[in-house]
Amino acid sequence: MERAEIIGVGTELIYGETLDTNTAEIARSLEAYALKVERTLRVVDEPLPLAREVGQAWKRARLLVLSGGLGPTPDDVTREAVAEALGEPLVLDEEMLSEIETLFRARGRSMPEANRKQALRIPSATWLKNPRGTAPGWWVRKEGKDLILLPGPPPEWRPMWEEVLPKLNLPRRPYAKRVLKTWGIGESEIVERLGELFKRDKEVEVGTYPKLQGVEVVIRGREDRVADLTERIRKRLFKEIWGEGDLTLAEAVKRRLELEGATLATMESLTGGLLGAEITRVPGASRFYLGGVVSYSVGAKARFGVPEELLAKTVSAETAKAMAEAARVLFGSTYALSTTGVAGPDPLEGEPVGTVFVALAGPKGTEVRRYRFPGDREVVRLRSVYAALALLLT
Amino acid sequence: MERAEIIGVGTELIYGETLDTNTAEIARSLEAYALKVERTLRVVDEPLPLAREVGQAWKRARLLVLSGGLGPTPDDVTREAVAEALGEPLVLDEEMLSEIETLFRARGRSMPEANRKQALRIPSATWLKNPRGTAPGWWVRKEGKDLILLPGPPPEWRPMWEEVLPKLNLPRRPYAKRVLKTWGIGESEIVERLGELFKRDKEVEVGTYPKLQGVEVVIRGREDRVADLTERIRKRLFKEIWGEGDLTLAEAVKRRLELEGATLATMESLTGGLLGAEITRVPGASRFYLGGVVSYSVGAKARFGVPEELLAKTVSAETAKAMAEAARVLFGSTYALSTTGVAGPDPLEGEPVGTVFVALAGPKGTEVRRYRFPGDREVVRLRSVYAALALLLT
Repeated sequence: MERAEIIGVGTELIYGETLDTNTAEIARSLEAYALKVERTLRVVDEPLPLAREVGQAWKRARLLVLSGGLGPTPDDVTREAVAEALGEPLVLDEEMLSEIETLFRARGRSMPEANRKQALRIPSATWLKNPRGTAPGWWVRKEGKDLILLPGPPPEWRPMWEEVLPKLNLPRRPYAKRVLKTWGIGESEIVERLGELFKRDKEVEVGTYPKLQGVEVVIRGREDRVADLTERIRKRLFKEIWGEGDLTLAEAVKRRLELEGATLATMESLTGGLLGAEITRVPGASRFYLGGVVSYSVGAKARFGVPEELLAKTVSAETAKAMAEAARVLFGSTYALSTTGVAGPDPLEGEPVGTVFVALAGPKGTEVRRYRFPGDREVVRLRSVYAALALLLT
Repeated sequence: MERAEIIGVGTELIYGETLDTNTAEIARSLEAYALKVERTLRVVDEPLPLAREVGQAWKRARLLVLSGGLGPTPDDVTREAVAEALGEPLVLDEEMLSEIETLFRARGRSMPEANRKQALRIPSATWLKNPRGTAPGWWVRKEGKDLILLPGPPPEWRPMWEEVLPKLNLPRRPYAKRVLKTWGIGESEIVERLGELFKRDKEVEVGTYPKLQGVEVVIRGREDRVADLTERIRKRLFKEIWGEGDLTLAEAVKRRLELEGATLATMESLTGGLLGAEITRVPGASRFYLGGVVSYSVGAKARFGVPEELLAKTVSAETAKAMAEAARVLFGSTYALSTTGVAGPDPLEGEPVGTVFVALAGPKGTEVRRYRFPGDREVVRLRSVYAALALLLT
């Protein structure tokens, strides 16, 4: 199979001052094509190393995509490096130059000298207009291959990429990818339960990825086999699967509550608002989420209806139960979720870090679950949020 | 300068199913050494492409670090690929094998056959013990170079890396890096204000990175020049700088309030708990943060003390002011922060997405700031959280 090479340009990507998510997003957009992405690179903003990497990638690729380094500053050298690698000169495109000047005038400013270089291109490149910024991209078609030059900021390159990708006439493949999302079951247990369904052959491949929202079972490969295998796996993990694809626990909760016409409230201790934040991350949450309370101090717990006798013991099933029930009364909601426990870094009330209680209060009573989560403070808090949401789904 | 090559192994890293933060973290840990990191790679879990990349990287590197692909499953092929690339056989190390078996026995289980391969090594490799998992690493010293093989999970590889790094006797360099954090000033304005201080020469380099917590000014290079330049830049951006290094706005707020012996409460609308979550992300937040309310419904706002006449208008300075003042009364805190506005995706009350009001109520009265943030729902929510925290610092 022919290769696609993807390069993220920028010293800040190498050191993580800016996290490189572009190369992964571009790779995903190519999954439906018969191109192999064997590697992705992050390269420094320096002409020589960059030109060397571009040259090597261009040699072996059917498609080479670069993002970043198209700005006006001295350390934006992607154009120069690509010109060098492809052995072509950089020429100033008067037409593009005046377009960029117009852009600045429209903002009531005159174009700084530095921006002139954004109108440079090699002869074999045609322009990719940038609807959101001053840096246009390149589309180079040469030797039956394509090289695409995109700016770094996602809001800028996404529309440019979406427009040019279909025009590249890349070989398609019958490809499908399904993701089944589980809660309450570990990777090794899934592998055991799946047994012969845990396939890895030329046509289809099953993989498990532990995530904070539970283990994901990913089925990739030829459409018909993926569809068939997905259904069989779904039956075998029926109890543990709460969703599919990009669905999040919070979105699954929204679906269920809207279907029921039910409302929700929260009272949080160790998660400090993270549960409410995750619920309201979903657009339209206001249709079912009435609100919440962060009872981060004893005074707050008392004020919001947690019984006196429980105020001394934060880390307990009784407190989680009382918090959920108090929130349900306070907001007059159908359901209420609560979280309490030890986020760390230090133990609390003699309980080790990661000891967490989550509770769900509803018309049929209150359910409490106890967990011992691994991980640091932030991971424990996130796992607690997801454990609370899972109470409504599994 | 000699090169360091860093490779993250895993198909899931290429497609972003798992975010690769390892290569960047390893690159940062090498900043104090006289090794150039010109690129970082992510490579698929396939023996041939991986062996090819390892071979090419090994040729040109003084140090080659790989993380990932040391697990027991069929798609963990890093050992095989490195052996192939270095032209050495894989041999089973009986001693390591029994150590792994012991590990499983300690967990009350017998070792699955699949884990045997974790005891494989090439003759020129010595073991790096893994304190947190079953996958030991390799330290290969050959041809005056070092190759380090680490597992993928950060909790596992970090202690291993910290232990082996000093033993590699890598050439050090007089290197320093300082990060100044600003709020309320844009990149281009900073560049203008800095003028001749915006240096980029062989010895020292200034860069600006726009982040959600404000623009970061990064000064890198020779220690003495970095120290001098940092002080001069600090003077010039005095009003806008709220912190340095890894400090977050929430940590800066904690410092200030603890110094003052003051307490804090919150009432959130569009951020839905994200503000409380950010405040309590910092260990020890309970020493000053009393709690908060997520008033995501009209009923909730009324219940927690927002005046009747304001309930109809969510997106307004008056509502933000009333929310902060209500929270201050409700919790009896020194200060209270509030957020209200339009997170999107749809406009609200005729106001466009990104229209946000944040307020700070305190002993000296209440301050309100209005913003028009770009970005999607989650970005608008995050910017709102940081804008609220910045009220206490700038």
